[in-house]
Amino acid sequence: MATIKVHGSVFSSPAMRVFACLHEKDLEFEFIPVDMGTGQHKKEPFLSLNPFGQIPAFEDGDLKLFESRAITQYIAHSYAEKGNQLICHDPKKMAIMSVWMEVEAHQFDPVASKLTWELALKPVFGMVTDGAVVEENEAKLGKVLDVYEARLAQSKYLAGDCFTLADLHHLPNIQYLMGTQSKKLFDSRPHVSAWCADISARPAWLKVVAMRSNK
Amino acid sequence: MATIKVHGSVFSSPAMRVFACLHEKDLEFEFIPVDMGTGQHKKEPFLSLNPFGQIPAFEDGDLKLFESRAITQYIAHSYAEKGNQLICHDPKKMAIMSVWMEVEAHQFDPVASKLTWELALKPVFGMVTDGAVVEENEAKLGKVLDVYEARLAQSKYLAGDCFTLADLHHLPNIQYLMGTQSKKLFDSRPHVSAWCADISARPAWLKVVAMRSNK
Repeated sequence: MATIKVHGSVFSSPAMRVFACLHEKDLEFEFIPVDMGTGQHKKEPFLSLNPFGQIPAFEDGDLKLFESRAITQYIAHSYAEKGNQLICHDPKKMAIMSVWMEVEAHQFDPVASKLTWELALKPVFGMVTDGAVVEENEAKLGKVLDVYEARLAQSKYLAGDCFTLADLHHLPNIQYLMGTQSKKLFDSRPHVSAWCADISARPAWLKVVAMRSNK
Repeated sequence: MATIKVHGSVFSSPAMRVFACLHEKDLEFEFIPVDMGTGQHKKEPFLSLNPFGQIPAFEDGDLKLFESRAITQYIAHSYAEKGNQLICHDPKKMAIMSVWMEVEAHQFDPVASKLTWELALKPVFGMVTDGAVVEENEAKLGKVLDVYEARLAQSKYLAGDCFTLADLHHLPNIQYLMGTQSKKLFDSRPHVSAWCADISARPAWLKVVAMRSNK
C-alpha cells in the first residue's frame, strides 16, 4: 500500500501540481477523489486534513500537509534522490528558483486562474463567461508574459538551465488555457511558446493529463 | 560598505518583511528609498532589479532578487549561522513551516492587505474607505483567524515551538491592522492575540517600526 496519499480532484489545478510532482519523482501514490459537488471538502474528515477546506490534501505516513506548493517542495526535497531533480541545491540558484516560484504564485496564477475559470471551467458547468473579466485578465496576463518572454530569452527555464518546480507549478493553468482563446497570449511570444511546448510534453505531465482523460 | 541593499519603502509591507528578516539575522544593509510617488519603481533602473515594477528589490553582491518571501528565504538559508534561526532544517518540520508560509501568502495576506489598504492607508492618502470591502474582508479574515486560533492552541508558533519565517511574514499587516478597527478580530481570539503580542515585541521587529518612525 502506498504511504503517499493525495486527496483531491483530477480537474483541480492545485491537485494537478502535486500529481505532476509525484510523477516527476516516479513515486507511487494513492489518489483519493474528493467529491466537491457534495461539499465533501468542507466537512470532516477532510477538514482534519486541511482546515481551510481546499483541495488537495496530502499524507506521507503520519505527515499531513496542505497547500499545493508546500507539498511539491516537500516532495522535491524529501525525495531528492528519486526521479527527476526539481530543485537547485546551490543557495544562489535556489534563491532564483524561489523568486520564480513566487512570481508564479503572485503574478501568473491570480490572473491565469481567473481566465481558466471564465474560459475553461464555467462552460463545463453551464455558466456564462464574463467577457469583461476575460478582457481585463488577458491584458494583465499579457503584461506578465512579456516579462516571461524576456526571462526565457535569457534562460531555457525560469530558474535557469534546468526544469524545476518554478516551471512545473505553471502546468495546470497552461494546460487549461491552451484550450481557450487565451492560447494566443502564449503563442504570440516565441520563447514563452517554446517553453510551454517543452514543459507540456514532459512524460510526467502527460501522465497527469491521462489521469483526467480516464475520468 | 554593506553588500546587502534593499530598495523599497519603510511603509511597504513586503519591504518591511525583508527588513524584519535582516534585523533578525543581525545583518547590516543599505536601505535605498524608492520614490513611489513619482513612479520610480515603474522606470529604469528599478525595472532591471524587478521587471514587475514592485518593491522591494534586493541585492547581495552580484545576486539580485525580488518577491519579498523569496528574499527572506534566501537570507534565512544563506545566513543560517547569523542571528536568530528562522527556518527548520528537519525535512518534516520544514514542510510544516512551508504549509504555514503558503497559508500566510494565500489565505491571510490577500484579505489582510485589502483591510490594511482600506483602513490604514487610504485615510493617509485622503481617500475614502469602502465600508462594503471592509465588511467582506473582515468576515473572511475572521474565518482565517479561526483556523489560526485552533493551530496556535496546539503550538506556540505557526510552524511549531519556534518563531520562523511563517510567523515573521505576518508582521507588517498585523502592525497596520492593530491600529484599525480590525484589531478586534485578533483581540477576540486569545491564542491569536497572545501570538500577535509575542511576535510584535521581538527586538528585530521594533527596529523595523523605528525605521518608520524616523521618516
